[in-house]
Amino acid sequence: MVALTSTPTPDADNERTLKLRRIALDTHGERVAVLNRRCALFHVERFQALARLEVRCGEQSLIAVLVIADDAALVDPDEVGLSAQCLTQLGASEGDRVAIHPPPRIPSLSAIRRKIGGEVLGEADYRAVVEDIVSGQYSKTELTAFVVACAMDGLERDEVVHLTRAMADAGRQLTWPRPLVVDKHCIGGIPGNRTSMVVVPIVAAHGLLMPKTSSRAITSPAGTADTMECLARVDLTLAEMRAVVETQGACICWGGAMALSPADDILISVERPLSLDAETQMVASIISKKVAAGSTHVLLDIPVGATAKVRSMERARRLAKLFRYVAGQLGLTLEVATTAARHPIGRGVGPALEARDVMQVLRSEEHAPRDLLQKSLELAGRVIEFDPDVPFGQGYALAREILESQRALDVMQGIVQAQGPRPMPELGRLTHEVCAPGAGRLAPLDNFLIARLARAAGAPFVRGAGVDVLVAADDRVTEGQPVLRVHAGTDAELGFAIDMLEAHPDLVTVEA
Amino acid sequence: MVALTSTPTPDADNERTLKLRRIALDTHGERVAVLNRRCALFHVERFQALARLEVRCGEQSLIAVLVIADDAALVDPDEVGLSAQCLTQLGASEGDRVAIHPPPRIPSLSAIRRKIGGEVLGEADYRAVVEDIVSGQYSKTELTAFVVACAMDGLERDEVVHLTRAMADAGRQLTWPRPLVVDKHCIGGIPGNRTSMVVVPIVAAHGLLMPKTSSRAITSPAGTADTMECLARVDLTLAEMRAVVETQGACICWGGAMALSPADDILISVERPLSLDAETQMVASIISKKVAAGSTHVLLDIPVGATAKVRSMERARRLAKLFRYVAGQLGLTLEVATTAARHPIGRGVGPALEARDVMQVLRSEEHAPRDLLQKSLELAGRVIEFDPDVPFGQGYALAREILESQRALDVMQGIVQAQGPRPMPELGRLTHEVCAPGAGRLAPLDNFLIARLARAAGAPFVRGAGVDVLVAADDRVTEGQPVLRVHAGTDAELGFAIDMLEAHPDLVTVEA
Repeated sequence: MVALTSTPTPDADNERTLKLRRIALDTHGERVAVLNRRCALFHVERFQALARLEVRCGEQSLIAVLVIADDAALVDPDEVGLSAQCLTQLGASEGDRVAIHPPPRIPSLSAIRRKIGGEVLGEADYRAVVEDIVSGQYSKTELTAFVVACAMDGLERDEVVHLTRAMADAGRQLTWPRPLVVDKHCIGGIPGNRTSMVVVPIVAAHGLLMPKTSSRAITSPAGTADTMECLARVDLTLAEMRAVVETQGACICWGGAMALSPADDILISVERPLSLDAETQMVASIISKKVAAGSTHVLLDIPVGATAKVRSMERARRLAKLFRYVAGQLGLTLEVATTAARHPIGRGVGPALEARDVMQVLRSEEHAPRDLLQKSLELAGRVIEFDPDVPFGQGYALAREILESQRALDVMQGIVQAQGPRPMPELGRLTHEVCAPGAGRLAPLDNFLIARLARAAGAPFVRGAGVDVLVAADDRVTEGQPVLRVHAGTDAELGFAIDMLEAHPDLVTVEA
Repeated sequence: MVALTSTPTPDADNERTLKLRRIALDTHGERVAVLNRRCALFHVERFQALARLEVRCGEQSLIAVLVIADDAALVDPDEVGLSAQCLTQLGASEGDRVAIHPPPRIPSLSAIRRKIGGEVLGEADYRAVVEDIVSGQYSKTELTAFVVACAMDGLERDEVVHLTRAMADAGRQLTWPRPLVVDKHCIGGIPGNRTSMVVVPIVAAHGLLMPKTSSRAITSPAGTADTMECLARVDLTLAEMRAVVETQGACICWGGAMALSPADDILISVERPLSLDAETQMVASIISKKVAAGSTHVLLDIPVGATAKVRSMERARRLAKLFRYVAGQLGLTLEVATTAARHPIGRGVGPALEARDVMQVLRSEEHAPRDLLQKSLELAGRVIEFDPDVPFGQGYALAREILESQRALDVMQGIVQAQGPRPMPELGRLTHEVCAPGAGRLAPLDNFLIARLARAAGAPFVRGAGVDVLVAADDRVTEGQPVLRVHAGTDAELGFAIDMLEAHPDLVTVEA
């Protein structure tokens, strides 16, 4: 092609750049570029259909979502506004000049369109999609399209393997100097249920290596990382985590800083708001994290109950089969424990309340919640049985002995000291009690509604907020006896919780 | 349930409100609420998982997407920032106090989850979804989930009917005082191809009522509304539109202000960036708009070609069948014209360039693009045959006679005067020519790439920007003969076009 330019060639550097300005906006992890509607270079609406543009500064570039500002208080027509994080990524400072370009085509999007069209995708497709997700190329709309297409299609089991492997490979891969590296994971959905913080010290006391990385809550009222943070620092660097594991045989820290399967964190940010719990995505999410974390043996807890994520044993069996297949293809030994989950487990729901329960169990206090104690021992026993020297069926007794002798408590205290102890947050001082409407047996509490109530009150962001369940399911109550105590930090947040209780007057019911 | 509050009751009005501040941000039609990270009422992160919150002011409320500001230049901890449009919607002013609440549950989302699970949805489901879309309840993520789920599922044809009817019913419904109200619509994808602006005056000159409402371009380089706006005002109120139609028998105006099938405009804003052209969504979109606009007879143009949306006659036939079925169920007579589309139609691509072509055809200028003339006459002839007094096969001759006698030009001038004439925008003064790389026959130009090139140059936002196609497909060229002339308004935008040309060196090719 012969190209002739008949008007003066644009002087690319001077006529096509804007001045950087730092803006302090946070839009849920999406990178944002703010342009003035009267931008000096072009009609900003041109970027509106795709909602994105590329900012280039020397060799560095990033894709950002366009936000248009109508006055110069934010950015002038000669400026582009970026967050401090984006400036760092570009290696640029306020006042530097950057070029703005239409967003590049993303070839992997064609794979998503093929999936929407019903095609089975191959390993290369999943690798390309996951790489582009991790490098921040996809908008929320495109991420949603991928997640929904996978959920709807169901994916063939080998597609789940491809997706899982691509996700595990796309981030950091930890390795440990022992052949047996154990972990325990729950698919979630049950408030309280903070078993990991009991299981880890028991298993470590037995002598198995259990470097536990956990997530923070996204739509639940507490993650293990949020709860552990009531006792100790959890945002460890990799070097700090290794040092803790070396001396304690275990850790309980936040995985977010480790870049383990980072695609998972990004996909979850669209799955959770949609309440999409597609099995295939769940399997890829969990197994990719475990493989990246260097686990060799994982016990997976699948709670089954009327208000749990999995509501029938048949579905639990099908899900367990898929988990085992995918884990096997990735070289991971995975066992499944299907557990009863009619009701929240433990008493507290919310970081500080759950940390309190965990410590009661570890201290073998008489008042410790029995369901949390029992379930933790069963799971710890199963994990201990990954040890080839422990005969099948002997794990539970070993776990109980370790707990009762306070050796697990010692390990927990060692982990807390090694990670950096923190003062336990106070419980939210504004409280509201929900009492039994009559005498009789307390009906099981809806897992989903209790989780929402604790979040309404401020959990997990307010560490001391949440719900204290004062009566166990099936226990007898008298009329007017307090059943739930909501803890909140501000009037507005206690108000949100009370609004929710008013919308669900049957949350606490009593059977004759 | 007996509820006891054991701490002081929150004083709902004083402790749970923030002060309104107007902020001038535009985020692609999504309503945005800006909160300071150190908000006085609660941890703002609590709203982050769902990314939304509800703002209430007296009886009014709206759902907005949360943006967190890290400094007080935007909003103070005691404030919430909303756009002027949101303030109007709330009937509130800067300084008023508003309450912030968690977003309400949206019951229709369960229908989307059922669709993702593979269920066939019923009429009530589609009505609920469409109503919630129109009232602004859905986030972009949720809109995407709906669109992808429908695209992937394919939808049964009666589901398309339910969706279409719900969309048509969800906005304004126009009625006209004549039994026969005709329209013509193209499914899009072909640059240039501005036949409506020729067909409407021909058909009106014949005496049929043709009140044409058109869209603006979203991802294409020009919509009929953008192109007509080079000649006349198009953002008419409904009363103004009726007045034009009463005196002229037709109009060519922008439908956006009429609230015809408003769900369609919202769904398109996520479909287009994904390049999702699902047939079912296309059918619901087009037919709901036509039914809402009060059309009784519609001619639908389905261009077929290697770089068109529809690439085979088989697919065109299948699509036509679905269009006819759904139209029939909604009481609309619909005929389909499948037209050849190897190449852009007309010479200009971009609003002013296309308006120039249209006027050349209406003035029967010798230099007028023959393909645009020919196709417009064929379509106008088919529309005229909706007139029961016109025998089958006679429409084309009638259309040609009307055009050649300049009666169509007279009607167009009448429409322009009635809508309010505007001066034709100048063509972009910065130009760049692409020349033939050798001698021979010009190969058909890729419809998709020509559209992208015109957009890169600034069309449709810069009215005079775009691409002038100087040689028709299959015409003979000499080496170095100009084939395309790009018009842009700024150096940056000409640069975007040149960047795109460099990425596609085979755009202009010559066959021996």
